[in-house]
Amino acid sequence: MEQRTEIGELGEFGLIEHLTRNFEIQNASTVVGVGDDAAVLDHFGKQVVVTTDLLIEGIHFDLMYTPLKHLGYKAVMVNLSDIYAMNAIPTQITMSIGVSNRFSLEALSEFYEGVHVACEKHGVDLVGGDTSSSQKGFIISVTAIGEVAPDQFVKRSTAQQGDLICVSGDLGGAFLGLTLMEREKKIFLENPQVQPDLENENYIVGRLLKPEARKDIIQFLAAQNIVPTAMMDVSDGVSSEVLHLCRQSNLGCRIYEEKLPVSEDSRKAAYKFGLDPTVCALNGGEDYELIFTLKQEDYDKITLNEEISVIGYMTAIEEGCKLLTKGGNSFDITAQGWNAFQK
Amino acid sequence: MEQRTEIGELGEFGLIEHLTRNFEIQNASTVVGVGDDAAVLDHFGKQVVVTTDLLIEGIHFDLMYTPLKHLGYKAVMVNLSDIYAMNAIPTQITMSIGVSNRFSLEALSEFYEGVHVACEKHGVDLVGGDTSSSQKGFIISVTAIGEVAPDQFVKRSTAQQGDLICVSGDLGGAFLGLTLMEREKKIFLENPQVQPDLENENYIVGRLLKPEARKDIIQFLAAQNIVPTAMMDVSDGVSSEVLHLCRQSNLGCRIYEEKLPVSEDSRKAAYKFGLDPTVCALNGGEDYELIFTLKQEDYDKITLNEEISVIGYMTAIEEGCKLLTKGGNSFDITAQGWNAFQK
Repeated sequence: MEQRTEIGELGEFGLIEHLTRNFEIQNASTVVGVGDDAAVLDHFGKQVVVTTDLLIEGIHFDLMYTPLKHLGYKAVMVNLSDIYAMNAIPTQITMSIGVSNRFSLEALSEFYEGVHVACEKHGVDLVGGDTSSSQKGFIISVTAIGEVAPDQFVKRSTAQQGDLICVSGDLGGAFLGLTLMEREKKIFLENPQVQPDLENENYIVGRLLKPEARKDIIQFLAAQNIVPTAMMDVSDGVSSEVLHLCRQSNLGCRIYEEKLPVSEDSRKAAYKFGLDPTVCALNGGEDYELIFTLKQEDYDKITLNEEISVIGYMTAIEEGCKLLTKGGNSFDITAQGWNAFQK
Repeated sequence: MEQRTEIGELGEFGLIEHLTRNFEIQNASTVVGVGDDAAVLDHFGKQVVVTTDLLIEGIHFDLMYTPLKHLGYKAVMVNLSDIYAMNAIPTQITMSIGVSNRFSLEALSEFYEGVHVACEKHGVDLVGGDTSSSQKGFIISVTAIGEVAPDQFVKRSTAQQGDLICVSGDLGGAFLGLTLMEREKKIFLENPQVQPDLENENYIVGRLLKPEARKDIIQFLAAQNIVPTAMMDVSDGVSSEVLHLCRQSNLGCRIYEEKLPVSEDSRKAAYKFGLDPTVCALNGGEDYELIFTLKQEDYDKITLNEEISVIGYMTAIEEGCKLLTKGGNSFDITAQGWNAFQK
């Protein structure tokens, strides 16, 4: 039988100590880590970048098909993704959790294992946090801190007319993974004897449950001496993010449907579910890829990297934000991105 | 009739824009604030201090007697208190909230008004955050960032044998305010016609609902060229905090009951509720005062400040952690501080 240790046995301070005991400091900028009123960081000569995210059970994740280890990993990743989206390198995180007593110490340890793997992989130190009970469900709040050489950070509002629009990786996979999981959950709830049919769907399930923040892209751009003119991460769907870049840069855009990167696995899954792969790519959220704009003269340099696709270009604001389809039609891009308050 | 605007009408991004529109940047170190993937901070020549707290309705606060404006104020204050407790000055915060649709835009605006007042008062910039829906209740996550001259931060673990133990302000007031509010809530629930009897209890109610992080103490210590040997803030109760200082510094202590600062209002309230004022001072949480240790030679300097009381001194670990009562008895100090998981 699996062990179950009640959280209350350790007390709040014992719990934090227990959960963070395997975390070692990896960054010279971490002067004081977990265990005091606050952490102390030393980023002399660099600028500090900060982002935060709140993840709530039943709103942002469903524990019915999200293993706790994956959840811990993803909670870190989505914040690191925001740091990379500023052209910065993450160095520290704080992690606060609120849990009801339905979670055992073993369950929380699994969650922190995922946190640990994500931190190790990206060279990030866990430097603080808070552990509390909740009346209902699992609540996660992560703050990530990073550093960037002075004034090398990249905002959303600084794209220029004529700039190329690029995305990393491929799009729509996480949404298709979510569609699959929701379908299997429904089948299971109606008929608990049926085992989930996830065969051949590793790719889209992985895209949903274990997203990877694109450190490699930031490192590639730095190695090529490319500073994007604007950048953000793709969390709500490319159409929503493109509109953010246009609005904040006061520009329009042209996006080519045929240029949207969709993996073969995602395409097959979309057809199986009766969905249009382009719609999944445009409006599916949670891919945690990077979308960025480049000066046209940087085009040759990025063709070296198969993980980067040019999907369109920025125009004057009067030309609007348009999708040019394979069939030669032109549509206004609308944000159908995830809106937590209208669901 | 009061206006009620549904949150869903604005969407997530509109909501953040609306709620943060009056926040102006006050710190030169704030390079990029709200509105991008992350904030950018520039603390060249200083060390950065980071802390975070998660506050959950029904666990950390009760909206039945907590006005939203006060809640916003307090959510900021409890984090600033942690920054001051490192001997640092807060400069930025991020604020994430999760709310169910029982909250209107007007309600959230009130909450952010309190956040705004707290930020203004302490010269802190709101630089980011996240706004999400929750399935149940109000969830608040704040991260505060501060700066400190290199290596002038003060940890909990560096007290020395013979050091004086000091606390700011007075103790037990917030706990007595909570006792009063819980009593009035019970009466109200049993008999909704009865109006709450809060007359003459302004002080303890204020201590609960509107705590003040002790910037003045940090400024006083700096002006007197005093660097405490160890410091933390009083959030769980002085007995719990004293034990942290002792454990982390590997020392014991003597605390004098007669030296514990208790206000006249708190003393009266304690008697009215049939409580021992000393027990309230020792074990009542949420006072958000500072507790710190000083070299004995700094004693003369701090007698200048009526807001600082010397309550005892650090001893060798073998001598244990003892409270010496007015009657001449000696008791082991035990942490009866607030434990979120054993309630």
